[in-house]
Amino acid sequence: MKRCIIFGGGPLSDCDKIQLDLQAQDDTIACDAGYLTARHFGIVPRLVVGDFDSYKGAIENGAQVYTAPVRKDDTDTMLAVKLALKAGCKEFLLIGMLGGRLDHTLANLQTLGYLCEHGARGEIRANRNRCWAVQNGALRLKRLEGWHLSVFALDGCCRGVSLRGVSYPLEGATLTSSFPLGVSNEFAAETAEIAVEDGTLLVIASQEGGEGSCQS
Amino acid sequence: MKRCIIFGGGPLSDCDKIQLDLQAQDDTIACDAGYLTARHFGIVPRLVVGDFDSYKGAIENGAQVYTAPVRKDDTDTMLAVKLALKAGCKEFLLIGMLGGRLDHTLANLQTLGYLCEHGARGEIRANRNRCWAVQNGALRLKRLEGWHLSVFALDGCCRGVSLRGVSYPLEGATLTSSFPLGVSNEFAAETAEIAVEDGTLLVIASQEGGEGSCQS
Repeated sequence: MKRCIIFGGGPLSDCDKIQLDLQAQDDTIACDAGYLTARHFGIVPRLVVGDFDSYKGAIENGAQVYTAPVRKDDTDTMLAVKLALKAGCKEFLLIGMLGGRLDHTLANLQTLGYLCEHGARGEIRANRNRCWAVQNGALRLKRLEGWHLSVFALDGCCRGVSLRGVSYPLEGATLTSSFPLGVSNEFAAETAEIAVEDGTLLVIASQEGGEGSCQS
Repeated sequence: MKRCIIFGGGPLSDCDKIQLDLQAQDDTIACDAGYLTARHFGIVPRLVVGDFDSYKGAIENGAQVYTAPVRKDDTDTMLAVKLALKAGCKEFLLIGMLGGRLDHTLANLQTLGYLCEHGARGEIRANRNRCWAVQNGALRLKRLEGWHLSVFALDGCCRGVSLRGVSYPLEGATLTSSFPLGVSNEFAAETAEIAVEDGTLLVIASQEGGEGSCQS
């Protein structure tokens, strides 16, 4: 399955310690100032997209540039996702997507739902947070020692939600977007399984640490 | 309309500069380490709720304490909201709700939807972000100079979405949770009006600044 790594312009302090596990056949796209995120990882992306309202510096030879109008419906991340889907990518790793403006963070989380609806899957990876969406199916996650695991209804209502291999299991529950029932679960086995029969779940693994990580 | 201010344990650096406009008749509830947030603002809250996994220090005389079990369905914020709704509060100001663990942030945003469904309204206020939810109705916001204004479908699908007094107006549009169409609008008049005929919109005003605020 062809993978695309998309680099956003979120703060480097939020994603500088992650493992990319870059493979030769991976596609790489940077969104505007996400070019600097790619460069942090030593990567010259295949493509740099955006309206370039945030990055105005030089771009290495070897990277193509796609300049979008400032007045556009798509966020730069969504633009990159659409181009990569067209190029046949089905698996996405999204870096530099959290920790900046909250509206950008939300938009990037919703992009995970968009990927599900287009037959693809994605992960947002940051130093202390990893996020996935799963639609009418199941997601299996290897234990992340000491991390919390939370699930949210991304699309209003999720029916038949089951959580297995966790400290607070659920079977066939209903989650809605206005009742955060699935917060702060914990891995209780080598693999946690998150399944939903009808709907799209947002799954977030979060690590304690840093300032103010103790809200509930 | 009786107002409740709820203090969460998100990082103080994210909310220390806000204006509370505390009034004598306001109810005040702190959630666990949110007690320290309240104290930062010089407030001894009426009530401190939580499982006290994050705050183990002393609590001033005058504050009641409600200790919840660690194994509970509600987040501490949701617990506070339910108690305040029971006490007749219809307006909520939520402080210390952003900038910590991403799962907590998401849960707190969803709590805004819960308030709508229970005939109340709320605002999450932080230094650089302000968040509201509006369900089958309209929200009017005074111009925030230099802030971006974004709207998201909080509950799957929002029909009849209209944005007025903004740079990129909409009339009767449909927004879904998997397509972030409404990101990075701008105030273009003294008042912006955000209306939705059917569904729950999450509205986020975000200010540029800080590290990595330039994603799209």
